[in-house]
Amino acid sequence: MLQGHQTWVFASKPVIISSAAIGGPFEAQGNLAKDFDLLHDDLWLGQDSYEQAEKKFLEQACETAIKKAGMKKEDIQFYFSGDLINQIIPSSFSARTLAVPFLGIYGACSSAIEGLSLAALLVDSQFAQNALVGTSSHNAAAEKQYRYPTEYGAQKPPTAQWTVTGAGAAVVARQGEGPRVVASTIGRVIDMGLSDPFNLGAAMAPAAVDTMEAHFRDLGLPASHYDLIATGDLSRVGHRIAGDLLTKHGVTIPTEKLTDCGILMYKENQPAFAGGSGCACVATATFGHLLNRMRKGELNRILVIGTGALLSPMSYQQKESIPCIAHAVALEM
Amino acid sequence: MLQGHQTWVFASKPVIISSAAIGGPFEAQGNLAKDFDLLHDDLWLGQDSYEQAEKKFLEQACETAIKKAGMKKEDIQFYFSGDLINQIIPSSFSARTLAVPFLGIYGACSSAIEGLSLAALLVDSQFAQNALVGTSSHNAAAEKQYRYPTEYGAQKPPTAQWTVTGAGAAVVARQGEGPRVVASTIGRVIDMGLSDPFNLGAAMAPAAVDTMEAHFRDLGLPASHYDLIATGDLSRVGHRIAGDLLTKHGVTIPTEKLTDCGILMYKENQPAFAGGSGCACVATATFGHLLNRMRKGELNRILVIGTGALLSPMSYQQKESIPCIAHAVALEM
Repeated sequence: MLQGHQTWVFASKPVIISSAAIGGPFEAQGNLAKDFDLLHDDLWLGQDSYEQAEKKFLEQACETAIKKAGMKKEDIQFYFSGDLINQIIPSSFSARTLAVPFLGIYGACSSAIEGLSLAALLVDSQFAQNALVGTSSHNAAAEKQYRYPTEYGAQKPPTAQWTVTGAGAAVVARQGEGPRVVASTIGRVIDMGLSDPFNLGAAMAPAAVDTMEAHFRDLGLPASHYDLIATGDLSRVGHRIAGDLLTKHGVTIPTEKLTDCGILMYKENQPAFAGGSGCACVATATFGHLLNRMRKGELNRILVIGTGALLSPMSYQQKESIPCIAHAVALEM
Repeated sequence: MLQGHQTWVFASKPVIISSAAIGGPFEAQGNLAKDFDLLHDDLWLGQDSYEQAEKKFLEQACETAIKKAGMKKEDIQFYFSGDLINQIIPSSFSARTLAVPFLGIYGACSSAIEGLSLAALLVDSQFAQNALVGTSSHNAAAEKQYRYPTEYGAQKPPTAQWTVTGAGAAVVARQGEGPRVVASTIGRVIDMGLSDPFNLGAAMAPAAVDTMEAHFRDLGLPASHYDLIATGDLSRVGHRIAGDLLTKHGVTIPTEKLTDCGILMYKENQPAFAGGSGCACVATATFGHLLNRMRKGELNRILVIGTGALLSPMSYQQKESIPCIAHAVALEM
């Protein structure tokens, strides 16, 4: 059911019956290491390119989630996937491996939450018994495509972020045990005129706030309804801006209740600049760490806001500013 | 409701209350010229780049469809859009202009049908009163990104296709007059090992056939149920292969009932190689020509199969074969 202008409320509360997070060597040294199902010490996973390695991460996340659900890949009815690589090739090639009906999506780093929202919609409206959501990012593949190959040693400002290497996946179903998807708020594109691709957190913060406010308004809920509110990859710079904007708009969220997956991901002493980013940031933090905390009973109701910067290297070269988007999902145990 | 393994049947039969097709100079000389709402004699539309021109085509298609529906842009509840350009920037930037909740999709040249399927799902399941679908492609932008800039004058084989310059859009709603979306069949990724990016029709034909067969099987319908069956952009080479595969699999469709939007688009004497392609191919042919024929009473029931080649220049350079997908929508007047 649509409530308000942009929030889908799922009456049947589709269940996330399993989820998985796969990470790379930098994530293995991070804060959330124990919440990953598998951590690789090699960025290549035995492949010939970083893009193929990213596909492998994604396939492993999907396989692991399917296995944890006690299912086989042919039991999956629909697969939603998207990623940052041109023409979402890791997603499309993982869909070839899975060989199930596939819907490609693109919401930049918000893709996991866009996919989770569509999967919940599909299951809630009885158009499927289950659906799989998966997404990935790879630090070296993203650097090569969006910035410079890492080997060039280009200098970065402290507002830059570190693309998470890894993948997250989740199986959403009508029946089963686990955290439930209660509602999704689909974001509008917000562009405040920022154009610095080394400061995406600042660009995305207004989109995150716009979607959070829409969510609270549509559902008539105070922010205090949630035990934790986590944005996707605003990281330190964007997180502070989002906090300031919320305060300015009269939305009070206690500091300890508002966090960001990009801040959670790495230790302070890791050279991750302002924090983590990439499709795998919100995906691994949510499908690993946050859902684990819900399953352990530490959190009952959370709101996750996937944030995406919808730029491309070409739109930047053509002097465009950065359109941003954020989608939110409300989960409850 | 899910019927069979991969077909969504829309009980409420969401209505396409309006649609629009915008084209460029080459399309103006084509077979379907009279079915375009607007034809431009300039590839640039006054913009500084082909990518920005593509965005303009898409915005015009959306504006025209919205206007024809007697609506304003703020009446649109959700917008689905995807295109071929890296990180789907024409779609994302058009979503910034529209400023309504946005879901980015990617199914290469099948995107219009993926979007139409998701829009129908959303409306049928009462999660929206209406949704807008839009997609675009631009010949010069696609050549530059996928092959060589046109100015290089690179030679092409006759199996190559001509990317349609233009955009198509449609408004899907619960109530109103117009052709109705009866069912959608979501395709699996099919890859028969072909790797020639100058012969995408051949690569995509098996995916089109797989989805058509799934559609007939899931709904227990013979192909003769439809007045016309149109694939998206198999063009002459792929169309012949699809016909042969269907015959081999025992599916009989009379020649005059099986067509392809890439063949319909241009005149035989236009230098379009094997025919049209690109996201705008199936989008403009369907949202313009085919829906017009339905509205005129010439066609009552049609099946449109959007076909997409999920390769990227990088996957080709990395010696990968071409994964393909096809999604089908059944429309009835």
